[in-house]
Amino acid sequence: MMKTSIVTGQQARLASRNGTHTTSTSGLAPGHLQANLIILPSRYANDFRTLCARNPVPCPLIAESAAKGCSDAVVSHIKNLVGDEILGRGSDLRRDAPRYMVYRDSKLEKSHCEDVTAEWTGDHIAFLIGCSYSFETALAEAGLAPRQLVQGRNVPMYRTTMGLCAAGVFRGGTYVVSMRPYRRRDVERVREVTRRFGAMHGEPVDWGWDAVGRLGIGDIDGPEWGDGPLDEEGRMGFGRAREERLLRGEVEDDGDEEVPVFWGCGVTPQEAVMRAGLEGVVMAHAPGHMLVLDARDEDIVE
Amino acid sequence: MMKTSIVTGQQARLASRNGTHTTSTSGLAPGHLQANLIILPSRYANDFRTLCARNPVPCPLIAESAAKGCSDAVVSHIKNLVGDEILGRGSDLRRDAPRYMVYRDSKLEKSHCEDVTAEWTGDHIAFLIGCSYSFETALAEAGLAPRQLVQGRNVPMYRTTMGLCAAGVFRGGTYVVSMRPYRRRDVERVREVTRRFGAMHGEPVDWGWDAVGRLGIGDIDGPEWGDGPLDEEGRMGFGRAREERLLRGEVEDDGDEEVPVFWGCGVTPQEAVMRAGLEGVVMAHAPGHMLVLDARDEDIVE
Repeated sequence: MMKTSIVTGQQARLASRNGTHTTSTSGLAPGHLQANLIILPSRYANDFRTLCARNPVPCPLIAESAAKGCSDAVVSHIKNLVGDEILGRGSDLRRDAPRYMVYRDSKLEKSHCEDVTAEWTGDHIAFLIGCSYSFETALAEAGLAPRQLVQGRNVPMYRTTMGLCAAGVFRGGTYVVSMRPYRRRDVERVREVTRRFGAMHGEPVDWGWDAVGRLGIGDIDGPEWGDGPLDEEGRMGFGRAREERLLRGEVEDDGDEEVPVFWGCGVTPQEAVMRAGLEGVVMAHAPGHMLVLDARDEDIVE
Repeated sequence: MMKTSIVTGQQARLASRNGTHTTSTSGLAPGHLQANLIILPSRYANDFRTLCARNPVPCPLIAESAAKGCSDAVVSHIKNLVGDEILGRGSDLRRDAPRYMVYRDSKLEKSHCEDVTAEWTGDHIAFLIGCSYSFETALAEAGLAPRQLVQGRNVPMYRTTMGLCAAGVFRGGTYVVSMRPYRRRDVERVREVTRRFGAMHGEPVDWGWDAVGRLGIGDIDGPEWGDGPLDEEGRMGFGRAREERLLRGEVEDDGDEEVPVFWGCGVTPQEAVMRAGLEGVVMAHAPGHMLVLDARDEDIVE
């Protein structure tokens, strides 16, 4: 099935289930929410809910399995939306993302597998976490299309030293952030557009070149996930291009200069889960291979 | 009025209003919630709500003025509680805390004044933020009474380098944390007891001697607010006592050793407000001189 013919959440999920869509879900079913998927043994569920409640910006909990072991219906954590509006009946959380990861006792067991029907048990609970694809559409519509979207690359994501609030077994985690470059003069508009997506990471957590150090990011051109960011012409690294401008002594107009803008990222809870050393089988979608939902962007805009 | 004769939130507020109670509200009306009070010009209200929503652990928003300029009724931000259950009719947010602070254009104008009736305008909105007095009662009942409570001192509070998520005009803020020492072997129980107070800072954000560095706290014996923490015998600083034990080469049993335990603190949003350089008149309760509510601890326990 051609990507362009997939216009609803249900179509995206069915294409993932029957193997006709196997790649990143970026750009799939435009206008529909996409979700990070984390599937945990039930004994960790309370702590995970607390982790999300205490860290709503990087860990925006949208919904979870309607009951322990339930893989075909969810209950909503979003005001004014019920579970069936988020994920319609007939869905299958074990097969409806294009690709999955499986961890056993915190060690990777399967990478990019097609489904997790063999691993799912009556003791598992799936959690759906918000994703920034939603606000990217809104940014593009406001004439502020993220560069990586225009260049057909994945958004760069970085580990930071910005601490999460601990919650039960989840301790010592830090924010993962995504980065999109913008001209300094556009940052306020970018903040305004994304602020309305409070349930999907919302406005940036930090921005500007100083923020790189504040967040403890070592190399802006070497993200831990996604593709390294390029300069405007796609010729070299975004960070290297700036260094070269500085070396050439080019005086930059404050407003014209491009700066990195950082958002909370849905990889954060996955990292926290990995770091916690959980026992048993944990599953997740493969990076970029999200679960596409029936709810639409406008359903969650504030 | 004697402190011990004040057993309801309304009694505490009336005693504050008529000037018979003028000191810290610690221990007043046991079992009733107490709140940090922040009163802002209405144009900052949306950003402040977002700040609280994005940082619920240090900034747990309980309620706010029922409308712009309304000083005698609140709307609730707590599930299953309506405004009148939090703060009964007949209250007066301008007079019902024992002492207030007034800032004009971000500069302190009045310290520890009796009321803010002269400064309050039809454009002001009051915000009620959770306070850790609630879980201290629960800790004491579990046989884990916080030291400063036993010693009749104020809890020590520290500025940290742990970043808040930015929200509108509120940018670059950091957590303020409160600290209570506990034996290492008791930390898990302390976490369990306070975890249930999710709407009042909940479980600790960090703990252990390593946490002092992680949080960027310079001197554990020199808190920015409250009283310096003492050792068990009340003889010297909690941090200095440990240094002397280390110098004497005393090998400590891991479980017996006392470690600092840190919680998110309701001074955080005040600090964020001060840092934002707001224009106009901002008001707050004086530190420790809280607004006592009609809602009870058990109303918000999870």
